[in-house]
Amino acid sequence: MAEAASIENAMHRALDLATRGPATGVNPQVGCVILSPDGTPLAEGWHRGAGTPHAEVDALAKLPAGAARGATAVVTLEPCNHTGRTGPCAVALIDAGIARVVYAVADPGEHSAGGADRLRAAGVAVETGVLTDAATHLIEDWLVAARLGRPFVTLKWASSLDGRAAAADGSSQWITGPAARADVHRRRAAAGAIVVGTGTALADDPALTARDDTGGLLPTQPLPVVVGRRALPAGAQLRRHPLAPLFHPGDDLPGLLRDLRERGIRRVFIEGGPTLASAFVAAGLVDEYLVYLAPTLLGGGRLALGDIGVTTIGEQRRLQLAAVDRLGDDLLLTARPAPKVEH
Amino acid sequence: MAEAASIENAMHRALDLATRGPATGVNPQVGCVILSPDGTPLAEGWHRGAGTPHAEVDALAKLPAGAARGATAVVTLEPCNHTGRTGPCAVALIDAGIARVVYAVADPGEHSAGGADRLRAAGVAVETGVLTDAATHLIEDWLVAARLGRPFVTLKWASSLDGRAAAADGSSQWITGPAARADVHRRRAAAGAIVVGTGTALADDPALTARDDTGGLLPTQPLPVVVGRRALPAGAQLRRHPLAPLFHPGDDLPGLLRDLRERGIRRVFIEGGPTLASAFVAAGLVDEYLVYLAPTLLGGGRLALGDIGVTTIGEQRRLQLAAVDRLGDDLLLTARPAPKVEH
Repeated sequence: MAEAASIENAMHRALDLATRGPATGVNPQVGCVILSPDGTPLAEGWHRGAGTPHAEVDALAKLPAGAARGATAVVTLEPCNHTGRTGPCAVALIDAGIARVVYAVADPGEHSAGGADRLRAAGVAVETGVLTDAATHLIEDWLVAARLGRPFVTLKWASSLDGRAAAADGSSQWITGPAARADVHRRRAAAGAIVVGTGTALADDPALTARDDTGGLLPTQPLPVVVGRRALPAGAQLRRHPLAPLFHPGDDLPGLLRDLRERGIRRVFIEGGPTLASAFVAAGLVDEYLVYLAPTLLGGGRLALGDIGVTTIGEQRRLQLAAVDRLGDDLLLTARPAPKVEH
Repeated sequence: MAEAASIENAMHRALDLATRGPATGVNPQVGCVILSPDGTPLAEGWHRGAGTPHAEVDALAKLPAGAARGATAVVTLEPCNHTGRTGPCAVALIDAGIARVVYAVADPGEHSAGGADRLRAAGVAVETGVLTDAATHLIEDWLVAARLGRPFVTLKWASSLDGRAAAADGSSQWITGPAARADVHRRRAAAGAIVVGTGTALADDPALTARDDTGGLLPTQPLPVVVGRRALPAGAQLRRHPLAPLFHPGDDLPGLLRDLRERGIRRVFIEGGPTLASAFVAAGLVDEYLVYLAPTLLGGGRLALGDIGVTTIGEQRRLQLAAVDRLGDDLLLTARPAPKVEH
């Protein structure tokens, strides 16, 4: 039987293969490697988008009939149990005589899940837990859509080391440096929508465009979304955004996210200010936190985050630090909600 | 003439030699390497404490008469110009025929400075700027004492990613994990004094001892200092500290630091709470910041730092990040005041 090391190598390869598929399609990016019983790679495949074969079927198709008998399929996502435009991958693997399946991430899909159970029922050995974090990260927006029916939500703020977004008089220009600002613009371009509150829109008059170092527009622009009931003045920079801003009253954040999902938006970037940011945190609607920390102290009452509904330490919102990066003089902390601990 | 690379190597060696001297003495730790004109090390020396030869003299003493003629002295601190229990090092270097002196840190001492000028006046080539940061860090408490006549002040706080020290109801236990807490105890043991405000002393009833993982007392204990006008109850843990606490009214922080200096204390650790921490920041009396950041969000009004006298962004207190360390799930950010930019 293939050793753990060759399984892990195959999963690394499957993850590489997965990235060849379209990153922003309706379907997730998935890769698959078929290993002989002694761990030798026999075939590999990946998914090229909706309507094309899934990664497992793509890999199996490269083998002569019978060649996969007794083999191990290493795949980044649990094989599906769903008959759509293609048949269930679980059945294809069983029919090919695969003896063992190792997958990284369970399929949470309402219609597609259940592949592991179906494989086990047919006598196939099924394992998981290999490179699960990396595989989850690769398709995090698809997973959030499949589990929760909404886009993946990133909340970004910039603050001083003492958690302030601005000085007492509201002035906040240039807390973070050019490297941090460029990073924000790259992430704006990768998001389907940027959401701000009317407070920020009125106070800062942001353009909410994704721009390069020279101020030129990047090739893709996020949809600007303004949450709140106050109107923007006719001369607001937002009214000159390449995409017409979407206005939302803001009393139903899950509804806003469903609406964005229906518009085909997979990633949402929440830019603030503190009232809107705190509302998303309090509602448990944040999948990823990007905290740009500038090495400076401001004191005073202009906080990056306000009331998030925590009154005692037992209610704290624990996160997990996924990355710590230096951007010029600043730090970027990437964090995600900590997994719930079972008691 | 010795190349830049051999000078830098020699300075690294001189820094190593310096650490052989006593770290908590009245005098700074200093190391010296004598290089031949072609960059070959001829002799090395270091300072072993008050009343013993300085590093330069220690190194020269290892050479036969005349052997240092035309040589380069690489030394971590500017050679002194002071006749104390030993003669001025500048004169010893001139008398030995040293042609060139490279030092890392300028001597700010009221009586000892001026060595570089004296060397230049005697025709010796004098340079600086090699490994200055590392050499400064090595003797930072001595430098602060020499420049400012007070102990080196470290301000420590622990906060959530959003800058809160506690939840809204004041509960704060276990924001940071065991690795961060152990680090604080090690640093307490290395400090001469720990300072807290009466607010913290009354609310948290801290022991202010330096303890190991099992709760046992570490070999050295800091002097506990309580700042404020409210009395501690007879049963306070602080009253059972191995050292009798020092009480100070708190309206004169420079006076408190002078007092601690007169008691022979070279490093002071400010532990909070926010009122005391903010007062030290506002007074410009902090040499080093240790910010323990826990990956959690609390919201609410219990901030690690309060009003520090900044009202507009131009008055922000810019820092420099010296280090970013992971301690278990937490981050430790070490920062220092940014050098003033000359306009």
